[in-house]
Amino acid sequence: MNTMTNMNHLTPSITKEDTTALILTAKKYFKLSWEQIAETLEMSPVWTHSACFGMNSMPKDKAEKLVELLKLPDECIDALEEKPTKIWEQAVPTDPAIYRLYEIVGVYGPTIKDLVQEKFGDGIMSAIDFEMYIDKIEDPKGDRVKLTMSGKFLGYKSW
Amino acid sequence: MNTMTNMNHLTPSITKEDTTALILTAKKYFKLSWEQIAETLEMSPVWTHSACFGMNSMPKDKAEKLVELLKLPDECIDALEEKPTKIWEQAVPTDPAIYRLYEIVGVYGPTIKDLVQEKFGDGIMSAIDFEMYIDKIEDPKGDRVKLTMSGKFLGYKSW
Amino acid sequence: MNTMTNMNHLTPSITKEDTTALILTAKKYFKLSWEQIAETLEMSPVWTHSACFGMNSMPKDKAEKLVELLKLPDECIDALEEKPTKIWEQAVPTDPAIYRLYEIVGVYGPTIKDLVQEKFGDGIMSAIDFEMYIDKIEDPKGDRVKLTMSGKFLGYKSW
Amino acid sequence: MNTMTNMNHLTPSITKEDTTALILTAKKYFKLSWEQIAETLEMSPVWTHSACFGMNSMPKDKAEKLVELLKLPDECIDALEEKPTKIWEQAVPTDPAIYRLYEIVGVYGPTIKDLVQEKFGDGIMSAIDFEMYIDKIEDPKGDRVKLTMSGKFLGYKSW
Amino acid sequence: MNTMTNMNHLTPSITKEDTTALILTAKKYFKLSWEQIAETLEMSPVWTHSACFGMNSMPKDKAEKLVELLKLPDECIDALEEKPTKIWEQAVPTDPAIYRLYEIVGVYGPTIKDLVQEKFGDGIMSAIDFEMYIDKIEDPKGDRVKLTMSGKFLGYKSW
Amino acid sequence: MNTMTNMNHLTPSITKEDTTALILTAKKYFKLSWEQIAETLEMSPVWTHSACFGMNSMPKDKAEKLVELLKLPDECIDALEEKPTKIWEQAVPTDPAIYRLYEIVGVYGPTIKDLVQEKFGDGIMSAIDFEMYIDKIEDPKGDRVKLTMSGKFLGYKSW
Amino acid sequence: MNTMTNMNHLTPSITKEDTTALILTAKKYFKLSWEQIAETLEMSPVWTHSACFGMNSMPKDKAEKLVELLKLPDECIDALEEKPTKIWEQAVPTDPAIYRLYEIVGVYGPTIKDLVQEKFGDGIMSAIDFEMYIDKIEDPKGDRVKLTMSGKFLGYKSW
Amino acid sequence: MNTMTNMNHLTPSITKEDTTALILTAKKYFKLSWEQIAETLEMSPVWTHSACFGMNSMPKDKAEKLVELLKLPDECIDALEEKPTKIWEQAVPTDPAIYRLYEIVGVYGPTIKDLVQEKFGDGIMSAIDFEMYIDKIEDPKGDRVKLTMSGKFLGYKSW
Amino acid sequence: MNTMTNMNHLTPSITKEDTTALILTAKKYFKLSWEQIAETLEMSPVWTHSACFGMNSMPKDKAEKLVELLKLPDECIDALEEKPTKIWEQAVPTDPAIYRLYEIVGVYGPTIKDLVQEKFGDGIMSAIDFEMYIDKIEDPKGDRVKLTMSGKFLGYKSW
Amino acid sequence: MNTMTNMNHLTPSITKEDTTALILTAKKYFKLSWEQIAETLEMSPVWTHSACFGMNSMPKDKAEKLVELLKLPDECIDALEEKPTKIWEQAVPTDPAIYRLYEIVGVYGPTIKDLVQEKFGDGIMSAIDFEMYIDKIEDPKGDRVKLTMSGKFLGYKSW
Repeated sequence: MNTMTNMNHLTPSITKEDTTALILTAKKYFKLSWEQIAETLEMSPVWTHSACFGMNSMPKDKAEKLVELLKLPDECIDALEEKPTKIWEQAVPTDPAIYRLYEIVGVYGPTIKDLVQEKFGDGIMSAIDFEMYIDKIEDPKGDRVKLTMSGKFLGYKSW
Repeated sequence: MNTMTNMNHLTPSITKEDTTALILTAKKYFKLSWEQIAETLEMSPVWTHSACFGMNSMPKDKAEKLVELLKLPDECIDALEEKPTKIWEQAVPTDPAIYRLYEIVGVYGPTIKDLVQEKFGDGIMSAIDFEMYIDKIEDPKGDRVKLTMSGKFLGYKSW
Repeated sequence: MNTMTNMNHLTPSITKEDTTALILTAKKYFKLSWEQIAETLEMSPVWTHSACFGMNSMPKDKAEKLVELLKLPDECIDALEEKPTKIWEQAVPTDPAIYRLYEIVGVYGPTIKDLVQEKFGDGIMSAIDFEMYIDKIEDPKGDRVKLTMSGKFLGYKSW
Repeated sequence: MNTMTNMNHLTPSITKEDTTALILTAKKYFKLSWEQIAETLEMSPVWTHSACFGMNSMPKDKAEKLVELLKLPDECIDALEEKPTKIWEQAVPTDPAIYRLYEIVGVYGPTIKDLVQEKFGDGIMSAIDFEMYIDKIEDPKGDRVKLTMSGKFLGYKSW
Repeated sequence: MNTMTNMNHLTPSITKEDTTALILTAKKYFKLSWEQIAETLEMSPVWTHSACFGMNSMPKDKAEKLVELLKLPDECIDALEEKPTKIWEQAVPTDPAIYRLYEIVGVYGPTIKDLVQEKFGDGIMSAIDFEMYIDKIEDPKGDRVKLTMSGKFLGYKSW
Repeated sequence: MNTMTNMNHLTPSITKEDTTALILTAKKYFKLSWEQIAETLEMSPVWTHSACFGMNSMPKDKAEKLVELLKLPDECIDALEEKPTKIWEQAVPTDPAIYRLYEIVGVYGPTIKDLVQEKFGDGIMSAIDFEMYIDKIEDPKGDRVKLTMSGKFLGYKSW
Repeated sequence: MNTMTNMNHLTPSITKEDTTALILTAKKYFKLSWEQIAETLEMSPVWTHSACFGMNSMPKDKAEKLVELLKLPDECIDALEEKPTKIWEQAVPTDPAIYRLYEIVGVYGPTIKDLVQEKFGDGIMSAIDFEMYIDKIEDPKGDRVKLTMSGKFLGYKSW
Repeated sequence: MNTMTNMNHLTPSITKEDTTALILTAKKYFKLSWEQIAETLEMSPVWTHSACFGMNSMPKDKAEKLVELLKLPDECIDALEEKPTKIWEQAVPTDPAIYRLYEIVGVYGPTIKDLVQEKFGDGIMSAIDFEMYIDKIEDPKGDRVKLTMSGKFLGYKSW
Repeated sequence: MNTMTNMNHLTPSITKEDTTALILTAKKYFKLSWEQIAETLEMSPVWTHSACFGMNSMPKDKAEKLVELLKLPDECIDALEEKPTKIWEQAVPTDPAIYRLYEIVGVYGPTIKDLVQEKFGDGIMSAIDFEMYIDKIEDPKGDRVKLTMSGKFLGYKSW
Repeated sequence: MNTMTNMNHLTPSITKEDTTALILTAKKYFKLSWEQIAETLEMSPVWTHSACFGMNSMPKDKAEKLVELLKLPDECIDALEEKPTKIWEQAVPTDPAIYRLYEIVGVYGPTIKDLVQEKFGDGIMSAIDFEMYIDKIEDPKGDRVKLTMSGKFLGYKSW
């Protein structure tokens, strides 16, 4: 018969949320930027940030490099590798920086759909086989944010 | 005393919605793509589509060219110039092509915010002083949609 | 016994919505701005626009001047005088110009509440005994919109 | 190999929420008003309150003055400087003082939009490059709250 | 076999909504107030208004008096007698006059519940076996609205 | 430099919520009804209950009497005096006693609006300059709850 | 002056939620069914379960019997007697057993309303002066659940 | 090539909604109750009303009897036989007669679930293989509505 | 200058909704099942139904066959070929047949996600490169519906 | 009289949520897949995962095998046997893997309903007497997920 004592296979492990908190604290302590962390991992800053916030799963070798860089407990490697359940702010986001992106999708969503389908046929741009980059474009009239997204085109199947 | 008769200053004018419907019918009749219409206007396809759907206001000269190209009634020029009230699908869009964009904002919104603010300081990417391009990138593993956005950075003011 | 014929006291009258539509058509025909219409009524542009859109009730003499100016049917006077039921966009407005105002209330609402109550004691700024003005402030770094609101302070009653 | 012990780079730091709580307690202890705190910082009371509630980021020198004035722990300086994620009451606020502001946006939002666009062209009043002041106007018929907002006009871009 | 012709038992009848519209038009034509209509029916103004707007069913004799007074078609008697399906504005009402009532229920609802249950035992005030009166109380500091509600107490049953 | 130790100006104070909990426990211990507490304060039971639940601010002398009566810690006086942020159940309340009130506003709201405006002109009944009483009316057919509300009439301003 | 020490009239009492948790644990320990508990109380199983889950108030003698049967602390008697605030799953329930009931109300609600009003006149079936029974009907084609509800008819009042 | 003329196979047929409207008009004309209609069909009143409102499909012979009784066009038979898409008032119903049923499910739903599962094992009461009856129980203290539901028990499958 | 007359390139065309309505009427007239229509098109019944309801785009040759089979106007070919905007019932569907599918996703969604990711790695089953079949499995204990779905696995990209 | 001490019949037991957490930790420790666990239980992986996540009740013998395999405390057997209350993500799920399933129901729900009812008559596919399997179909153009569902057909009853 099992008892409650001596069950070290039941000690709760470090979660993705714990790991994010540890990363943020260590990043502040070592005064590293996301760009610097991404360089160490040899990955893009967008993917790196997203995986550190638990929205993407990190391959083992990348997770080991991160743990090494930030002096995190080894148990974080497992947590970084785990497949995430992506839960995000539903409906209307309140932070102005995120709301503006949501507004762009609201205003230009049907335009993007029509122009993509004019160029490619009936289908969609994948959000799974997808990548994104952020750049700063200096401009005397005020610097500009450049956001570049690339997603595989998926055509609807008939059967 | 005014009466109900002989008030030709009260004849209802063509609305932005009427104009969109007329554009779509004429575009199909003349077998024009959005790219071709945009070229005639010497504007980008994204902006052109968006203005034709009543989500942006068209400068007079562009509106005249469009009316000329599609043989629309002259009253459409006024409607195209009018300042729009942008009403769009609230909450969660159901069309898969638009939903995927919304999902990207949900999953990557906080990442974009953090990386923009790491590069630029506290502030946002404007959705007003903003432009967007759509390109097709051919790829043997499956063609890709490339979406490029550029918005002015606006820093929060302290006072 | 009443019958369906000869009941001219049952002819439907012009509504507030009909009147708004007639005002907009006539305003465009006579090429008048809201500022010019407001001047004729000797009222503010904010109140004038709001009453023309059916969100405030117009005193008889103002309604008569408006009908005179725009050559509207006399039946509009009644409609302009009627007490409105104020129905407006619930939850989150989508037009960017209106959303920004909503965002200001979201971000600064608790601040306004605390500072008003620090200055006046426990209570609120009335939205009924209320007025508002809009001005353009020219500025070489970009013109600014100035919005001035004034509402009576109402203190909570104890009993 | 990393272990869980001796990792002082992983000690959680003081958050913006902690800092707000500390400010409120100290403000009550020292019997200071928001106006007095704002004077010490040489900033407006609206901005000061908003930054103390974590809705704006405080420049380093202002944060140091505040920590000095309220005898807060030094770790608060970092938290005050951090870029905020602005999360606010969604949909319909219940507190009467805040609801009345929301009602004003609902009732007068389309009016403000039309009059701003009549004066400036198609565009919006920025909520980012923005400032606000609150004054008490004494009046024998009942004192009035005066709210003055000033935001940069941003014109929509065509491309 | 039935055919589509000569089926006068299938002519659609006047609805409650039609009747409300006819009442409003006739009330304006004869320049009657709700108080005057209520006096003719020998009923309260609240109930009278509510039944004319289709939110309560009118006994036959009252419906006949109303049709007589306003010279409505006889078919309205049936519609006034019909049992209503009460459909009303869900969630949060936007008109300020109605919102204030909703706010009172939000702020004082738990208070009313506790005090009613302290006086009567566990149960509720009925909204069915219910009546309401509205009075104007003149007051030099500003007239006051007096609202009096009376509902039967219903105790929860145990079984 | 400030340190984390010896900062007694940062000890968190008793909140309005703490005070409500303490009041309820003490009220049960001393077997007092809301009517009895209200009598001691020389205020109405509705206002007294509402202020004890943190929905109204209590004047200093009333708060002192309450603390004296219920043997509460002195720190509660401050909390009772504080200006509340009124947060209440949004949308549709589930408790039957409160829902019935909400239903009354839904069914009779437009009636109250029309009859108030017929008697007073365009405006609203204030929910701020407002008071309410609850009485038990004995009746052989079943006792009745009598609810009396009185709110100042506020007329809409034109400007 | 009151101090924080020696205030045993401020010790928090056992809540309805605590009591439900204790009942469930004891019921499992003593291997009792709801039917058996109901028999001891000489009440129906529906009412007994509902009162144990804090959705109905229990008369003192029933509460004492329950505490005796399940060996609960005496403080539970008070909690069982307390008048409940009924809070339940809003909108659409997810558990299939409960959803099916909700679906029945959605599909047959208007039917029940019409047939009740055809039999009784305009009014409703009370959910307060109400009782319910659940029986198992054995059937070779599959056993059936029989649900019997009985509520007092309440007629709408005219006044 | 097909043309738009002479395509009588494309004449739109009578819908379920049309049929409901015709039934209601004829029912009023012939002064029949639902009980009387149900007797003619030799079905229960609940099912009969529900099928007439388009919430259940009527077998051919029942549909023919109904069309005969009410002198409806023969095309209604098809519409009555059609399989319905059951669309009903989502979330919270506003009519008091229907809301009370919804409240019963909210308050007693978990109780019904637990007692059914105590008697039958894990599973649900079907809302598909389901029937319901409504009776009037005369009572000197006020007549009562008796609602009896019977649904097949469905046990969850393990696999 | 363009005028409103003689603009036959502006005659509105047949929409996808018009086409669905024509298909349903013709299908009933010719007494065809979806299976029979699908056989003629040499496609699956699921895809055929879905494309006829405007949720998928039909290749030209399939559209021609359908128009031929059902004697539809030729203009329907264009409409069937058009790329759809997929708009469907949001949130919680009310029809029991559809709700049960939604419930399955609610109850088994996380299970499907975990088992797919255990078998395939981190990613999703595509709803675009997707097909589905419906079969009837006869069973003496009650026939069963068999639903088979097949979607391409898409792995998340790292970059 | 009962006291708070020596009441071991009131010690809270292990819940379904606790059990899920213990299962996940032990599964990781013993490096078992869901398929392997299902094999030990001689049940399908879908049902096994679902019961381990508390969405289905486990028969005693299966629960014992699971506790044996994962060396869980014996108290988990009771928890696994308990009848679950199924609570799941309402409205729109955000994780892409689950959202795609929800989208399929939105897009193809009406199609499934019509085709099932064409094959079986009016009724639904049960989600209770239901089973599901997941398979990996290897394919050179990209592997495919195969989902097979089987639910008993339930016909609507007439009565």
